[in-house]
Amino acid sequence: MALPPHGANPRALYESMNLERPNEIIDFSENTNPLGPPEALRKSWDGWFSSIFSYPDPEGLRLRKEIALFHHVSRHQVLLGNGTAELMMAAARLFQGKKVGIIHPAFSEYERVLKANDCGIHHFYTQEENGWEPDDEELMSFLAQGHALFVCNPVNPTGLPYSRASLEKWICQAETAGGMILLDEAFIDMVGEERSMSGWTGNRGLLIFRSMTKMFSIAGLRLGYLLGSKERVEQMKRWLPHWNVNALALEAGELCISDRKFQEETRQFIHTERTRLFSFYKELGFKTSASQANYYLLQPPDPSDTSELFEYLLKKGLVLRHTENYRGIEGRFLRAGIKTKKQNDRLMQAVKEWQRNAFLL
Amino acid sequence: MALPPHGANPRALYESMNLERPNEIIDFSENTNPLGPPEALRKSWDGWFSSIFSYPDPEGLRLRKEIALFHHVSRHQVLLGNGTAELMMAAARLFQGKKVGIIHPAFSEYERVLKANDCGIHHFYTQEENGWEPDDEELMSFLAQGHALFVCNPVNPTGLPYSRASLEKWICQAETAGGMILLDEAFIDMVGEERSMSGWTGNRGLLIFRSMTKMFSIAGLRLGYLLGSKERVEQMKRWLPHWNVNALALEAGELCISDRKFQEETRQFIHTERTRLFSFYKELGFKTSASQANYYLLQPPDPSDTSELFEYLLKKGLVLRHTENYRGIEGRFLRAGIKTKKQNDRLMQAVKEWQRNAFLL
Repeated sequence: MALPPHGANPRALYESMNLERPNEIIDFSENTNPLGPPEALRKSWDGWFSSIFSYPDPEGLRLRKEIALFHHVSRHQVLLGNGTAELMMAAARLFQGKKVGIIHPAFSEYERVLKANDCGIHHFYTQEENGWEPDDEELMSFLAQGHALFVCNPVNPTGLPYSRASLEKWICQAETAGGMILLDEAFIDMVGEERSMSGWTGNRGLLIFRSMTKMFSIAGLRLGYLLGSKERVEQMKRWLPHWNVNALALEAGELCISDRKFQEETRQFIHTERTRLFSFYKELGFKTSASQANYYLLQPPDPSDTSELFEYLLKKGLVLRHTENYRGIEGRFLRAGIKTKKQNDRLMQAVKEWQRNAFLL
Repeated sequence: MALPPHGANPRALYESMNLERPNEIIDFSENTNPLGPPEALRKSWDGWFSSIFSYPDPEGLRLRKEIALFHHVSRHQVLLGNGTAELMMAAARLFQGKKVGIIHPAFSEYERVLKANDCGIHHFYTQEENGWEPDDEELMSFLAQGHALFVCNPVNPTGLPYSRASLEKWICQAETAGGMILLDEAFIDMVGEERSMSGWTGNRGLLIFRSMTKMFSIAGLRLGYLLGSKERVEQMKRWLPHWNVNALALEAGELCISDRKFQEETRQFIHTERTRLFSFYKELGFKTSASQANYYLLQPPDPSDTSELFEYLLKKGLVLRHTENYRGIEGRFLRAGIKTKKQNDRLMQAVKEWQRNAFLL
């Protein structure tokens, strides 16, 4: 049985590896906010029960207005999705039968939605040695041919954000040539809104995918949105099912989006924990990606030990994300989400133990 | 502003008609179970809060097993959807660029999903005078050409079920000619499972759409499924986004599907109320469709009064479903859902008042 293609599915992982599943599990393969959802959600939960009886507003008008306000765009430039996965599927359909680029390593859904829409795929590979930066010349010449390109900012799985200068250059090139940058900002709110390209919403060379499930820890509810030109939003909307966003996601989304304090506190917390983790790993001779997000790549001093470490942690109930299906990494690293202080402590403790055992053998 | 294309959206309706919205509204345009969701849902609600934190099982394995058990099919013949609307969109994509038939009057989503997939549409019209039955010869000759056909059983908006003999004949014809019956059984559980064609699951000429939002009153959660051959299920799954069914819909679905007692009680209740309503309308000289479902078509003694009645009821906060965008009806009837005893009483009372006023003028 092959390893599951995504994280956040421990059941499938233990089954596929034929390992007994410990009673207690900490899922570091899931990149949602360790602080959990905003407190206001818990308080509203009971009152939301009655919202399941009736159809949700198919236009999601109130939430779209809040999102428009948050990003200073028009609500006609906002398209709600049943998670960003749904919006990516619809976006890929814009390029059905055409060629679209992916910069690797990348979120595996890009490839899946492109294949589902019979797109040709051009793969760009990045290397750790070059700071995971794509070859700019190759990329610009691809965009000059009017192709579309998936760009993840910050990159999943490295956590590295692109420079604003690069993004602006690529979008302009795409716009000029009639192509498009499909910009996945699923984790940009973990880095900081000032890194978002939402100010460029409406540019014909740009579609932005935003997830609300990571920052607000509501992955179970499914909620994402797209920012784009009014024309593209209308074009894609026709491919989405009516009532595509459920009533609870609408309620939760409204409550969350405007809670800037919660978002700022999360970024602070992630920063503190990341600093602590990275200094620990450095001392042990482990390599990490220079992530600015709430997850990072991890590699033991001898990279060939990676899968052994992965299995050791799994047996302890610490589930990291394998990178076997990340092109250009193919298992040489593990990806870990930043969790609560206590959970991060547990991981560091286990890593230390593993290393001590490795030395003793 | 045009009337909204669907029911269950009073806000949009009052706005489009430029009417002030009364404080209290009873939404007869929504066809969900008047008994509300099964009691067990309310009891589980608090405990489900934590399920919003994590990604739902992308395979929905536990729910698919329950559904498979319910219908005595393989779980590989079950495809879960974010409401049946999502599954209809995917099914229409099977026929992208081809011709597909619709029997009118019909649920307006059929036309929408076919247009979104650039299908040609062949419209079959039925008449009240012929008991809303389609012309069998015309239909069989269409199917003989290998086309697909949307069939709604029971019909929305009339509530009439087709005979088993007709359905079997159509499915066989479709199978032989390489076409397909796209059978929408969204309300079949309100009529009785013995009327379902689920026993034919796996036939290459048949896809069945089932909704869980009507019987279990969970329209806000979005949940439906498709029954089909393993091959078709796999083919359609690739067009659906990953994690397309949210965690709460999965939880609620598991709890609901096996509650046969609740389903039977609902059917009993609907039957009792329908009998009561129809005998009232008959006495007043109103016409109703011979519905066996939880909704029906209604027409005042003088059909030209229909829109006046619609507006009169709206002002009283009683929201019926206009039929302006039902081809073949175009406003000559209203559709009403069967609600609680008290709510049905309110409707009858208002209808009586309207008629008295009409006589006095």
